[in-house]
Order: sequence, then C-alpha cells, then structure tokens
Amino acid sequence: MPTKGLRYVNKVNLDKDAATEPFLHNRWHPDIPFAGTIKNNETVKIECVDWTGGQIKNNDSADDIRDVDLTKVHYLSGPFEIETAEPGDVLVVDIQDVQPLEDSPWGFTGIFAKNNGGGFLDEIYPKPAKAIWDFEGIHCSSRHIPGVKFAGLIHPGILGCAPSHEVLKTWNEREADLIKACSHMDRDVALPPEPKGVHVGSGEAQTKEKVGKEGARTVPGRPEHGGNCDIKNLSRGSKVYLPVHVKGAKFSVGDLHFSQGDGEISFCGAIEMAGVITIKFSVMKGGMAQIGMKSPIYVPGPVEPQFGPGRYIYFEGFSVDEHGKQHYLDATVAYRQTCLRVIEYLRRYGYDDYQIYLLLSCAPVQGHIAGIVDIPNACTTLGLPIDIFDFDISIEKPAEKRQLGSCAYASS
Amino acid sequence: MPTKGLRYVNKVNLDKDAATEPFLHNRWHPDIPFAGTIKNNETVKIECVDWTGGQIKNNDSADDIRDVDLTKVHYLSGPFEIETAEPGDVLVVDIQDVQPLEDSPWGFTGIFAKNNGGGFLDEIYPKPAKAIWDFEGIHCSSRHIPGVKFAGLIHPGILGCAPSHEVLKTWNEREADLIKACSHMDRDVALPPEPKGVHVGSGEAQTKEKVGKEGARTVPGRPEHGGNCDIKNLSRGSKVYLPVHVKGAKFSVGDLHFSQGDGEISFCGAIEMAGVITIKFSVMKGGMAQIGMKSPIYVPGPVEPQFGPGRYIYFEGFSVDEHGKQHYLDATVAYRQTCLRVIEYLRRYGYDDYQIYLLLSCAPVQGHIAGIVDIPNACTTLGLPIDIFDFDISIEKPAEKRQLGSCAYASS
Amino acid sequence: MPTKGLRYVNKVNLDKDAATEPFLHNRWHPDIPFAGTIKNNETVKIECVDWTGGQIKNNDSADDIRDVDLTKVHYLSGPFEIETAEPGDVLVVDIQDVQPLEDSPWGFTGIFAKNNGGGFLDEIYPKPAKAIWDFEGIHCSSRHIPGVKFAGLIHPGILGCAPSHEVLKTWNEREADLIKACSHMDRDVALPPEPKGVHVGSGEAQTKEKVGKEGARTVPGRPEHGGNCDIKNLSRGSKVYLPVHVKGAKFSVGDLHFSQGDGEISFCGAIEMAGVITIKFSVMKGGMAQIGMKSPIYVPGPVEPQFGPGRYIYFEGFSVDEHGKQHYLDATVAYRQTCLRVIEYLRRYGYDDYQIYLLLSCAPVQGHIAGIVDIPNACTTLGLPIDIFDFDISIEKPAEKRQLGSCAYASS
Amino acid sequence: MPTKGLRYVNKVNLDKDAATEPFLHNRWHPDIPFAGTIKNNETVKIECVDWTGGQIKNNDSADDIRDVDLTKVHYLSGPFEIETAEPGDVLVVDIQDVQPLEDSPWGFTGIFAKNNGGGFLDEIYPKPAKAIWDFEGIHCSSRHIPGVKFAGLIHPGILGCAPSHEVLKTWNEREADLIKACSHMDRDVALPPEPKGVHVGSGEAQTKEKVGKEGARTVPGRPEHGGNCDIKNLSRGSKVYLPVHVKGAKFSVGDLHFSQGDGEISFCGAIEMAGVITIKFSVMKGGMAQIGMKSPIYVPGPVEPQFGPGRYIYFEGFSVDEHGKQHYLDATVAYRQTCLRVIEYLRRYGYDDYQIYLLLSCAPVQGHIAGIVDIPNACTTLGLPIDIFDFDISIEKPAEKRQLGSCAYASS
Repeated sequence: MPTKGLRYVNKVNLDKDAATEPFLHNRWHPDIPFAGTIKNNETVKIECVDWTGGQIKNNDSADDIRDVDLTKVHYLSGPFEIETAEPGDVLVVDIQDVQPLEDSPWGFTGIFAKNNGGGFLDEIYPKPAKAIWDFEGIHCSSRHIPGVKFAGLIHPGILGCAPSHEVLKTWNEREADLIKACSHMDRDVALPPEPKGVHVGSGEAQTKEKVGKEGARTVPGRPEHGGNCDIKNLSRGSKVYLPVHVKGAKFSVGDLHFSQGDGEISFCGAIEMAGVITIKFSVMKGGMAQIGMKSPIYVPGPVEPQFGPGRYIYFEGFSVDEHGKQHYLDATVAYRQTCLRVIEYLRRYGYDDYQIYLLLSCAPVQGHIAGIVDIPNACTTLGLPIDIFDFDISIEKPAEKRQLGSCAYASS
Repeated sequence: MPTKGLRYVNKVNLDKDAATEPFLHNRWHPDIPFAGTIKNNETVKIECVDWTGGQIKNNDSADDIRDVDLTKVHYLSGPFEIETAEPGDVLVVDIQDVQPLEDSPWGFTGIFAKNNGGGFLDEIYPKPAKAIWDFEGIHCSSRHIPGVKFAGLIHPGILGCAPSHEVLKTWNEREADLIKACSHMDRDVALPPEPKGVHVGSGEAQTKEKVGKEGARTVPGRPEHGGNCDIKNLSRGSKVYLPVHVKGAKFSVGDLHFSQGDGEISFCGAIEMAGVITIKFSVMKGGMAQIGMKSPIYVPGPVEPQFGPGRYIYFEGFSVDEHGKQHYLDATVAYRQTCLRVIEYLRRYGYDDYQIYLLLSCAPVQGHIAGIVDIPNACTTLGLPIDIFDFDISIEKPAEKRQLGSCAYASS
Repeated sequence: MPTKGLRYVNKVNLDKDAATEPFLHNRWHPDIPFAGTIKNNETVKIECVDWTGGQIKNNDSADDIRDVDLTKVHYLSGPFEIETAEPGDVLVVDIQDVQPLEDSPWGFTGIFAKNNGGGFLDEIYPKPAKAIWDFEGIHCSSRHIPGVKFAGLIHPGILGCAPSHEVLKTWNEREADLIKACSHMDRDVALPPEPKGVHVGSGEAQTKEKVGKEGARTVPGRPEHGGNCDIKNLSRGSKVYLPVHVKGAKFSVGDLHFSQGDGEISFCGAIEMAGVITIKFSVMKGGMAQIGMKSPIYVPGPVEPQFGPGRYIYFEGFSVDEHGKQHYLDATVAYRQTCLRVIEYLRRYGYDDYQIYLLLSCAPVQGHIAGIVDIPNACTTLGLPIDIFDFDISIEKPAEKRQLGSCAYASS
Repeated sequence: MPTKGLRYVNKVNLDKDAATEPFLHNRWHPDIPFAGTIKNNETVKIECVDWTGGQIKNNDSADDIRDVDLTKVHYLSGPFEIETAEPGDVLVVDIQDVQPLEDSPWGFTGIFAKNNGGGFLDEIYPKPAKAIWDFEGIHCSSRHIPGVKFAGLIHPGILGCAPSHEVLKTWNEREADLIKACSHMDRDVALPPEPKGVHVGSGEAQTKEKVGKEGARTVPGRPEHGGNCDIKNLSRGSKVYLPVHVKGAKFSVGDLHFSQGDGEISFCGAIEMAGVITIKFSVMKGGMAQIGMKSPIYVPGPVEPQFGPGRYIYFEGFSVDEHGKQHYLDATVAYRQTCLRVIEYLRRYGYDDYQIYLLLSCAPVQGHIAGIVDIPNACTTLGLPIDIFDFDISIEKPAEKRQLGSCAYASS
C-alpha cells in the first residue's frame, strides 16, 4: 500500500517572468484555456506567485511600489477544470493548508501612491511605502515595523470560478455605468477591461486580444462568483462554496496572504507572498438551487490564531468624516474614521503614521459593523490585538516614545 | 467587618410612567440636572427601563410597534455626577455585570414600520413586526421564532457623558446640514431636536423647554461621546473609556440589550429589556490628551459566549444592490446584501422573512468588513452561529421545511 | 399575558443557624424527606448557604478555619422531588445561572490545618490559612492576595440525586474496606458515617438517628451519582446528566463556588460562597440504559472566561516525589509536583507560599493529565493564566519582589 | 538582499535503516556525540523519523505492532550543540512549525500487546491493534476508524537536553529502586538501561557500549529535563523552557505527533509520524536560577484547533476501579475509569472498543484533574469534542448503530 505526497498541479519558478507562464492568467474570462484538470474529490497542491508577479522586491525602497504596473495584477493560478462541474453546481473548496514557498519565506505590504492604485486613506497618506515581512514558521515580523510579531492568519485573497459570457457582460455593463456616473470624480472608481498587460496562460493571440477587450479585471470581488474577496478568515481548514458558471468550473486561485486585517485598507495591504495552497475539490450537483445561492458562502477553519476577547483594544468610528461633515449611515466613512483613531493612538509610541497604516492593513485586526441603523451615524469598530506588540500598549499606562525606525519609502 | 450588597443609585418601577421618573431623561443636553452622585472608584448598580419606557408589551401583536412614539426614546438613567470628573478627563466605565430585572425576565425585538422608524431593510420589509423573548438564566428563546435558543451577549446599547454646550452646537449644526442636503430624499436622514415627548428628569419647565429646543436626540451614537453605539460586545467585564465634556461627567446609560447582532439591523433590533447594570467608575485625569482620544474606546470582557470558529456559516455581500446597481466601495450597501443572503438561506427551513430579519437583528451574528479597497466593490461578511438552532442548518445537508410559526404582526 | 420572575423553591436567611433549616441537609441518604417539589421541565431558583453553613467569617483571622467543625459539612439544599423521575431515568440539570446572594458579595478560600481536614499539600503546608474574596459583578479580588483579579467560573461544587439503599450500602462497604486497609496510615483516608453534626432537614429524630448511622458523608464525589465532583467548568449554561436512583430523584445541590482551579487543591479551596442557582430540570425516561450511563456526564456552557491559549504558563510535574522517590504512573504525585513548581515560580514575586497555595486552589488554573503511559512517569501540567495578575509574570522578564501582604493566619 | 529558506540541520531518508543514521540516537546519555551545531538565536529545520524508526507500516495488519522491537525506541534527532549554552542556562525552544514530511502524509496509532509494551487499559484490552491515519493539510482521517475527521494539534512528543552524568546517575538509581520495590508485580514498571538495540548516532563502539550500559531509556519523561512528556499542546507557536545540564545543551527532539489526546492512553497512542520541526533556539544565561526552575515550563501557541466549550461532552471518573475497589485519591485510577466511560458511550454507535481506545489516544480529548482532595475519591474528567464526528453524538439523541468497520488487528 504505497503512500506518497499530494499531486502538484503546477510548480512556480520565481526566476521566470509570470507573464510567460502557461498556468497563470490575470483577467476573468470564460475563454481563457484550462491550465490543468482536477478530479472531483481530488486533493491537490497549487502553487501561486505573489499577486504582482514578482514586481515587488525584498529591499528597503518603495520605488517598486511607486512604479508598480497594475495592468498586470493579479496573477492567478488556473483556470483549472474540475471534472463533472457544470453551471448551477456549487464547487466546494476545502482549503486543507496554505503555506509560503519554502525557499521564499518573506512577504510585503505596500501603500500605493495616490496616483497609482491608492488605498483607503490615500487622501491623507498619498505617498508610496512598503514593509517587508520575514516568516518564521507560523509567525512573522518586519524590520520596517519593529515591536510587532504575530501568527499569520494565512489565506488566499482570491478564489473563484470563471464567469459565463452572460455574467461577464453583466459585470462590464454594471461597472461601466458606475464609471460613467462618477466621471466627475478625480479618481478611478472601477477598472474597465484593459488590453495592456493582459495574460491568458496558454491562450493564443486571438484569445489574448478578446480577453484584453472583454476580460474583467481581478481587482474587485463580485457577488456572482466571489473572486477578490480578501476575507482574512478563509484560512487553513476553511470550506468555501462557490457558484459554478461554466462547464468544468474554470477555478482560479491566487493573491496568497500570510496575514491580513479586516478591510485590507492599504489595498496592497495584506502580507503578500508566493506560496502553495492545498485544496480538496468536490462538486455539489445542482447546489446553487439547493442552497438558494447568489454569492459564495464559507465556513472558517478551526485553527485561527486566538487571543482572548479581553486582549483587544476596540476603537470606535462614526460616519462623520475628518472634515466634520455628517454622512448618512455610511459604514465606509465610519470605518475610515475608526482606522484614523487607531493611528492617533499608536503614533504616541513612536511609530510614524505610514507604519501604522501598513500594520492595520496586514495584522489580524477585527473590523466590525456595530450599528448601522441609528440615523445618521453608522458605527464601526476595529479591534487591535495587544499581544502582537512586544511592549505594553494598554490604555491606562502612559505611552512612552520609542525608536521604532521607519518603513520603506520611495526615493524622491 | 460588615459586608453588604452594592448601592443602587436608583430603582425602577415598571408600573410607573417613565416620563415622570426624576432619574430618567431622553435627550442629550448639559443642562439636564444630576440624578445622583457617584464617587470616583465607586461601584454601583443602576436600573434602567427598556428604551421605549414600557411602550412595548409582552403579547402577540405588533400594534404597539406600529404605533410607538419615537419622540420619547431612549429613556436613559442619569445623568449622574461622577465626583472629580472634569472636561478633558476620561471616565473609565468598568461594566461589572448586566442583568435583566429579576421580575421582568423577557424582552422584545421589533421591526418598525417603514413610515414610523424604519430599519435597515425597510425598502423590502416595510411592515411592523415583533418577537418576544423569554429569558432563562443566560439563555433566551422566543415563541415567535421557534427553533433557536442562545446565550445572551448582554450589554447596554447606550452609555456616554453629556455634551458640553459647544459639542452640542456642533452636533446640531452638523446634522441640520445633512437634513438640508438630503431634503430630496423621501426618508428621515437624521432627527433634529424635538420638543414633543421630551423628558428631563427632575428638571423644571424652563429646562424642559430649552432641552426640547436644543437637546440632541439619543438615536445616533456620536463620535465625541459615544452614546448609542449599539456595540454588541460591550458585555460583562468590558471597560469603556469615555471622553468627559462637562464637570461631573453627567454620565447616562440605558437601552439595555439581552443580545444583539452586529448592525442591529431592524433598528429596534436588539432584545430590548429593562435591567440593571453594575458599574465601577473611575476617572483618568487629563486622559483625553494622554490617550489622544477623539472617540470612545473599549476593551471587551472575558465571558462572551463562545462558538468555535468552524461553527459559523459566513455569508458574503458586495456593493451591488438588489436592483443590480454598482455602488462605489459602499460597505452599507454590501452589508445590506449580506443580510439578504442570510434571509434567502434560512427561509428554506420554513421561517418567514420577517422572522429571519428579527433574528439577524438580535442573535450574536458577526458582521465584518472584509475588503474595502478593491474598487468598486466593498465586501462584507456576516457570520451566523449554527449552534443557536436546534436543527442542523449545515450547508451540505438538504434543507427541509418545518413548521416554524410566525412572528407577531400588527392588526390591519 | 403576565410575566414574572422564576419561582424560588427556598430562601436562605444567613442570620439563621443552618442546622435548623428544613431545606438543608448534610448527608446522602434516601430517607431524608423531600424539601419541596419541582415539576418536570420547570425552571426554579434554589438558594444555598456556603458549604460550612456560615462557620467561616469575613475577617482577617484563620481561627475559624482552624476550628471548623467538619462533621457538619456540606450543607446542601434539598432533597427536591422532581416529578416523574424514577430509578433508571436520567435527570437533566440545565444550569441556567449561578450568582452570589446579592447581599453577600464575598467568599472565602481556606487551607485547613493538617490535623483538621488537611489538603493536597498538607505535608508541606500544615497550617490553617484563609483568603477573603470580594465580588464585583463577574470579577473577584482579595485583600489577602493582592495583585490578582479575575472573572469567576462560577459553579456548584456538589449536585446529585440521593442514593438508593442499595447504592448507599455499596458506598459504605467500599469505603470501610479502604479505611481498614489503610489503618496503618496516620491520616484519614475516608470519612465513615458520623452521627455528630448530622442534619436531615425536616426529618424527625428517628430519621436523624438512622441517617447519622448510615448516611454517606458529602465530602467525596462518587461514581454512582456524582455529588461532590468539584468540576470547575460546571458553570452557567452547563447541562449535567445525573443517574436517578430513587423515586422523585431527591436532587440536592450546594457548595457553590465563585471560582475554582482544577483539583481544588487546598480542599476548602474554591471561593466558597452563599448563592443562588437557577436550574431547569427535565427527565429522560429510561436514560441510564439508553446512554449506558454509569457516572454523570455533562456539557459545559458557552460563557467560560476565555484567555487565549498563549496567555497561560504551563508547568510540568512528574511522578517523582519531593523526596526523590520514583512512583509508578501516579498522576496524583505528579500533580502535587506540578503545583509545587508553580509555588516556586510565583514566590519570586513576593508572595508567601500559603498565598500561592490558596490562589492555585481557587483561580481558574487548568490541570491536565498529559502523559499517563510512559513508565514509570506520569506527567501532568498546570496552566496558570497570566492575565489574572496586574503585573507581568512572563518567563523571560526577571522577577521583582513586591509587597504582597499576607493571607489570614490563625492566632497562636 | 537575498532571501532563502531556513537551514536544515539534517535530512531524513525513509528508505534507510534508522539504526545507521549518524544524526539519530535512542538513549539519553551525555557522551553521545553532537549531531550538528546550531547558533544561539538561529532558526533551523530538523527532520525526524517516526519514533519506531519505520517499524510500523501503512497496511491493514497489526502484526508489526505486535512484533515491535521496543529496545530501539525512540529514535531522536540530535543531540545538537547549541552554541553558548552551559549548565544552569535555560534553553528557549520556540517551535515555529511542525509538519509531516511532504512525501509521507500518513501516521499510525497503535495499541501494543499487553506482553510487549502494553498501555493504560491493557488489563481489559490486551490485544495489539492499529489505525492508519491519512493527512490532508491540517486534517486527518482513518480508514480504520470511519466517521471521524479532525485538525491535528501537531507537536513533538519528546524534546529535551541531555542529562549530565550526575543527573543520569540519579535517574538510574531512582528507577532501579522502583523496579526492585515492585518486583512482585507481573509487569514492567520501568525500563532499565538496555544494550540491545542501542544507537548512538556517530558514536564509536566504545561509546555505544557505555551508553548501552548506562543510557537512560527514552520512554518516560523525567522532571530534570522533560524528554518524553507527550504534552499535546506543545504545538505550532509554543515556547518551551528547558534546563541545560551539559555544555552545548545536547538538545534532541523526536516522536513527532500529528495529534494526541491527553494521556496518550494506548502508549503508542498519538498519531505517530515522520516529520519536520522548525525551531528557533535561544539561550537564557543563568536561567535556571533566575526562574527557580526544576522542570520544564512552556507557553502554548495561539493556533490550537478550537471548539466552543459547549461542543464537548465531558465524562467523569472516580478512584473506584472496575472491580469496585476504592482507591485513595488516585487520579490514575480515576482517569482509567473516565476513559472506560467514554468507551461505553461510543460503542453504542457501532464502534468496537479497540477503535475507541485508539481514538481516545490520538484525538484532541481534554483530560482534566477535577477534584483531588475529596477523600477518598479523586475525580477526573475527559472532554470529547463532538465536532470530530460526522454524525451526531449528542446525549439526548438516541444512538443508532452504524457500520463502522474495524481497526487493524494482528494475524493469529
């Protein structure tokens, strides 16, 4: 009775250009060819590059963050054919494990420049910045944010099945409408299809051209299939239930995160890494109708890092913005205020604001919608685990300034 | 060395009209007279009526919900003078315990009519409805929502110190601006001062008139003092840090909840009850400057009901509304969609939608901001604990319709 | 639809002599008359005196501990008739809540003198000692053990149904055999029936005499019915399944603990208190056969105080005693060594050994059987939660002696 | 700034005979030569064979268990020199990760024959038996015990530093005394030094002979250094503090477990596997005196699989043995009874007793010392997590017999 390791459906070579790999792609489109086949009820390992395909380096400059080419993101592994899966089925994705690549035990968190990507607080923090994280087993720490160390809540930022042509059309129209409606705003509100930078795996030139014109960008998650949900708790042992829209499912996965905070606020905000994910796939025939499913659902795994409930400091924010303007039940405004409250709290210890912005993006902070009905104020909360710090940040103890270095900035 | 119980600073009589009690009030205003004095570092018990002051009855009709007089809410106990507290201090509120009144072991969850209060889903569910909950020790169950039972995450929906005149002025101007800006909307976006229904404790007629004209409504929480935050985790053993704006703090508390879900989505959505809260008060002199505090912060207690992480089903929602319209990073829209996904899931077991809407409002569901940067979609999640049901709601098991009765509705 | 509080089946008067109360008793015997009747599926409140019936006072001397009359313990509330319960059934005891009496917010932990009660470490710590604990809501602290504060894991030390005459006979014979076999030891190994101090509730003189001669002492738990199990996790929300041996069950409860550590090592080791327990009773007909039940089983409640797993220091002990003698897989010896390791660790901070002995008895420490098969050493562990201390006891930080006062001792 | 993976201090080849590997040994002795050198504060990967060195195979017969050569166990990796460590120091072992070998994703749990190894229940279950476990990421399941699946609480069963000659002498004398004192018993109570089967890594014949005569067997953990503690919670992220007795520490590790229950009752009771452990080593100079350390202490990691407290059934056992004999505060007897109660409970579902015995040995069951002072009964409890079963084992639901196959037995 022989035993051996699980099958790898692909192997990543970090020295190669992601744009040449046949098992990677960076748009959602039903015509991207299969990168491999997986049996129903099979468990496999899938390797993934980091979401930028290696554009960001392990160094002390944020020039790479400043200059990142966002037409290329995210590089996803797939799409994989899951045998027996058909439209209307639910694909059950049992995440058995997620690990960084053994020879690449590091990751990065970035703050994009306001004019190239931006982020949740870019009105206030417009400069590019970066932190490199070193992994030691389940823990990580950063030379750019001294004083913290924590266990990763490791997970994929993106997983989903390809849209059908019909679903894709819905997406493109819906987002085009928004872009049109917001044309007065001085920022991108959505990313339309973009031929530049497109990669379609082993697809031919014709496919590439078509996908460049029609393919949905990978940045947002979308209700019909999930995709870039950036749910920090989708970690080891989780089961995700995904709608299937095309024959064979065309499942893709990528954007692996060693850790992330709720909101992933700096956009490149998780600890981004190259890694390997172990998944058992199974198909629930006719599952969408059975569950009444419109969007993915999931059940978390049992091995999340645990802090006692009393080991968090919770900050409160309301839908009154930093200019004193009252918004109507706007949880987005409230969460931005909540984040700012944490920055004000932590800067007393000697961190600069960009370090904290990076930290809130990637550490396992809990972002909750507390009250959403007490007109006109939405109230959100953010729980900061105090045990990730190697000094005492409890409230009643006077804060003492420390030498806490600096994150990486871009050259000017 | 004698020992005895803690001091009660007031005692509630449920047979009396809340509007006549000298220790209750229902507006925020610095001129409302003190209802009692508490020493620094003293622990006391404070009794509270339910937030409506007894308007809602333990019966099987939602007529009382339909007809509720919202000019009177919330009845708060206080304001109490905390000795030594002065503006700029932080009041540390150590919540030692919260309990329902011993002779009133029940509470209610309501869905207000769209035209009298409304709620998070009132576009879809405009009718008034109600569920009565019976308490047995730490647990509750409802004849109006059979099949569920859970331990309460008991907490106050409102606590805060009185605003100064200056803070109050800010509130009134800020919210008036919103009302003006939204005058085209066919719904209330904020509640301006309202002389009708005002109650100012032991205050004289002159005070009452002034407070009626200027006093801030208690419905929203506000960043400067907290107030109606409706944070479900502010339970037994929590410590809350509140800004002090006036001499003596003028602390008030009320709106006790036996349990609440994140968002408290039906507005009268917690399990509302009369009860008693035990608080130890202490004053951090100069605390606001020391902490850099703009809004309250808190540390949860250690006795929250615990489910394993794998005992939740998490639903995902995105900022595409039920009409298919794409919104820009709108977490409020996303959370509404998330709630609708749960309703669709649970109705398969035989619940009607209003029952589920009530349940999501008051059961300990976890509402998270997952991703808030992936333009244009905000993604929120809602975790539904499966162990509150006495039947199996796991995903892969086909749902079976049950006889699950009905919540209380209004007569027509 | 009227609502009111739950029924009290008895009310304790702390000014009265426990030995005169008709609803208390202090032996296990089937002939003790019922103290009241409870319906199947009824929820009631039962008040309890502390286990010594008020012998221990809230003062700073351990004279009362030294002189305690142990023929009288434990005073239990009951026995109550549970309608429909018959031998062979299982009584389901749903512990809805446990609270100290409102006007008696304190408790005590004692170390009995070696020659009057003793305890787990009495060879090393033979003197009587005491700590008084003050309750504030869910928390407790002691003037006799400064520097610690924790949330109680509140529970009954004793609950069980009366033995049948047959079961009682088994107990008496079995324990008499042990006493005989150990007659060479210089310590009590079991407590035989004892006419002195016996109390049988409303029972007549004849009953009293009979029970004095035959009644089982309440000190040990016993496999056939549970009784004095001292299981710290039998807290709010727990369900206990008890064998029924006599018609009507004759259920008794007492020995309420505000908190206890695994092992309750100082014997009077929990935080002993007078209090009230809320129980819903229900009867599983024929349950003993259905479950194959020989001893009680239980399911803990969901509201235990939680510390993260990383917030414990775990000490290891082995079955080599303090004289260097090797014992064979003796978990009792191992656990004693484990406790001694904690005392050695904590005394570095300025506590005296008796203070620590008291603390380990009553704080929520986790006592585990780690390895029980690696001949000849059993290995046990004891987890000490570090968050109960108001100073930092982490391992790598050098210990600093503090002024930590003294527990109460007896006059000499 | 190059990055690469962590250093492996050794690499296991499962096709080679463990008895020939220079980095393995199977006795504790200070003269066994170093197998490598690790810097202070270095993080390394150490590969380990399973504790039997490959004697047990992935098949459906327990003949290998029956015939196992126990003179050879345990094969440990080491001893490693930790630079700067000297007697009196404490070696801090930061367990960054533990994983099965990638190409060996399986493990075994065995019940040794009563006459060759035995176990905790061998009086009742004397036959050899075996279960093979398959790993899928963090989870495991067994074809020999259908109906269960759980996340591993992965850990090393053995880690420790070599004894000094003086400590070794103490061990040998102490255990020889026990063997002598128990010569009347018909079972091994301890294992004296044994020349047969000894392996001393790269040691010469002379060393081998000396270690054969003097070397301590690896089976028991011992207070002075830890060793075979079999503490199930020493998992990912744990930090262990070990006494150093010889220059360079001579640290060894092995006996990796994918999972284990408290007690590891069947002796070969964990899920035994070959694997790799990632450790960061650091030296606390003079730590033993600073901490007052006599035995190892540890702090668990934050990623233990979590079940809610209410998702366990707890069984109670007392120190009355299965023959009805009363023992005096004997936690070992009590724990044996507790285990038997679980077997009686679970056999109702169709498992045979050996399957349950295996399961209790390796699943994450919680074994607690509840009461250890209520003469004459010790009370222990065992918590069985109900979520590891794929059918409902809750108490009030009548048990239904299932087809649950069989574990592997020996041929006769």
